[in-house]
Amino acid sequence: MKQYSIVLALSMALISPLVVAQTNSAKIIEDFKPSTLNQPGKEFPQVNSQGYARFRIEAPTADSVRVSLGLGGKGGTKLEKSSDGVWTGTTAGPMDEGFHYYNLTIDGGKFNDPGALNFYGSVRWESGIEIPAHDQDFYALKNVPHGNVQQILFPSKSTNTSRRAFVYTPPGYDKDQAKRYPVLYLQHGWGEDETAWSNQGHANLIMDNLIADGKTKPFIIVMTYGMTNEIKWGGLKNFDITPFQTVLVDELIPYVDANFRTIAKQSHRAMGGLSMGGMETRTITLNKPDVFSRYALLSGGLYNPEDIKDKSKVKLIFLSCGSKEKPEGVKNAVTALKGAGFNAVSYVSEGTGHEFQTWRRSLKELAPLLFNE
Amino acid sequence: MKQYSIVLALSMALISPLVVAQTNSAKIIEDFKPSTLNQPGKEFPQVNSQGYARFRIEAPTADSVRVSLGLGGKGGTKLEKSSDGVWTGTTAGPMDEGFHYYNLTIDGGKFNDPGALNFYGSVRWESGIEIPAHDQDFYALKNVPHGNVQQILFPSKSTNTSRRAFVYTPPGYDKDQAKRYPVLYLQHGWGEDETAWSNQGHANLIMDNLIADGKTKPFIIVMTYGMTNEIKWGGLKNFDITPFQTVLVDELIPYVDANFRTIAKQSHRAMGGLSMGGMETRTITLNKPDVFSRYALLSGGLYNPEDIKDKSKVKLIFLSCGSKEKPEGVKNAVTALKGAGFNAVSYVSEGTGHEFQTWRRSLKELAPLLFNE
Repeated sequence: MKQYSIVLALSMALISPLVVAQTNSAKIIEDFKPSTLNQPGKEFPQVNSQGYARFRIEAPTADSVRVSLGLGGKGGTKLEKSSDGVWTGTTAGPMDEGFHYYNLTIDGGKFNDPGALNFYGSVRWESGIEIPAHDQDFYALKNVPHGNVQQILFPSKSTNTSRRAFVYTPPGYDKDQAKRYPVLYLQHGWGEDETAWSNQGHANLIMDNLIADGKTKPFIIVMTYGMTNEIKWGGLKNFDITPFQTVLVDELIPYVDANFRTIAKQSHRAMGGLSMGGMETRTITLNKPDVFSRYALLSGGLYNPEDIKDKSKVKLIFLSCGSKEKPEGVKNAVTALKGAGFNAVSYVSEGTGHEFQTWRRSLKELAPLLFNE
Repeated sequence: MKQYSIVLALSMALISPLVVAQTNSAKIIEDFKPSTLNQPGKEFPQVNSQGYARFRIEAPTADSVRVSLGLGGKGGTKLEKSSDGVWTGTTAGPMDEGFHYYNLTIDGGKFNDPGALNFYGSVRWESGIEIPAHDQDFYALKNVPHGNVQQILFPSKSTNTSRRAFVYTPPGYDKDQAKRYPVLYLQHGWGEDETAWSNQGHANLIMDNLIADGKTKPFIIVMTYGMTNEIKWGGLKNFDITPFQTVLVDELIPYVDANFRTIAKQSHRAMGGLSMGGMETRTITLNKPDVFSRYALLSGGLYNPEDIKDKSKVKLIFLSCGSKEKPEGVKNAVTALKGAGFNAVSYVSEGTGHEFQTWRRSLKELAPLLFNE
């Protein structure tokens, strides 16, 4: 997978939400329930046990209401107006498990669904819907010790402002003041921001649950904004990593090491990212081999053995994607890396594409491998 | 001000956003700029130096687009469609300084402005706009040491879930591990949630700036959700404090004291709240005199001297509101409290009503008084 194909994969995923085409004769089971990502008290949108989504929008005198979720390339789902002025409709088929961004087109304008919570994606706050997944337990809010997610504002001379990051500290972080932790710097994708991994990714709950089950050692996760140079549609080809690399390596990492109980060493510092964040991870880890020792690209490109100058500095390479992306590329790259003597691991999320369910699962697989010596 | 009038004031403020009526002959200065609360890169809504707001909504085939901000009781601001299908309009007069919630009515349905960020108010995520204030410097993001705002998930047996709170820790909290801090428990208003004080209130920036200027001692602020019993419109009359009081006093406070470096004593614990949060503060502080020693009601009711059984347990009473609310009530109550020997302080925010600019200013006035012995 070359950088260009990342751009394509990313753009397509954002334009055409993934719905499995089915014939209209498929029987829809009438067990619809409100999406778990609805605003408090809102009954719609709803999802059923098959993964169909149903929408209900009040706009009595509108001429047309469409939902962007639906069969790719066919304009999403067109809602029909009932006699009481409410627009309703159901996707033509079941959707992939997990999280999906969407929006409404009402009389030619793009708006959000007033029933749904908003999530930053596509360079705007989009509506979000959650299709229950068979494995949703791993990111559920459970009665286990919880880590905290804190907003930090760190000084950035290179961009002349205070920048925001979110820092996950594991359960017990505030209690044992002697303990120090390794750190994963984890990046969002194109059009998203530093809220994505906590909000739609549930990174904190994934970690809380893994730690409660004894499946991973606790570590800190730092999530900041990776679009420092205002990438426009199609602009990834001309992407200049320098501004973000400066913010991350010269400003954020020293701040985190000074203000959190980190193990401030290359050997205990990882970088990972999804989609565009994978592209950033790949470039920065190769540029800065003395800063990071563990690399993770989630639907975000590959490493070739010859990309890496000093093999001894790399402790882990993790490559993943959804089965609906290009899993052969990920698997072949890991085979080549292993053949060259790297500690490389591939993961393919079954039945998902270039969406957050792939990346939630990838984080679940990645975390236990990261700092396990 | 009795509890009933709080309900009225609150409801009116939420229904009719505050715009100063002016004749249409007032000259509008054409120096409109994007609101500072717009989504990244969005040009509209805009505000000018007089406080007028201008909106621009794309909905080419809509029949009607209205903005809820405008002259109270007259349906807000009706936008007009230009030949390119874009709806534009300007408020009939300048708006009060500070933050305002709003929404759009498009062909009879309620939606948010795709240009603006969203803020939780009126039991939904609303659009928000910021009218530059003459004193906005006190909540500006400046190049000073910043505290962190962290999301905690604390176990709540009484509601059988993990509940969310945000905790502001002052700059340097993570560095000096020996230092312990007093705590302010700070509540939002009706229809808002635990995000309000950080998002639209800028509580963290207000504290960072006060601390940088040496105007307040550092303390921790804890903000959690106060509508545990799902208050509906007009339901405040039947409000039962018990569920929230249990969450706050029996669950959240012990969790915070166990997980943060607090001074876990009544003498170093304050409670404050705005509007409905003031009502909650009043009730809980009177019910639990051994838990809190400092009370703050921001546009949220009054204390009478006879309300308080043991004067020796109360170290500070702070009452505030906007000059467009009922400042005489606040002033008279403080006079009576002082006459009875209480350390009581009133504050009236000039030119503002039942909105967040009043409460931002109130926090700025309150913080230096809270733990100043």
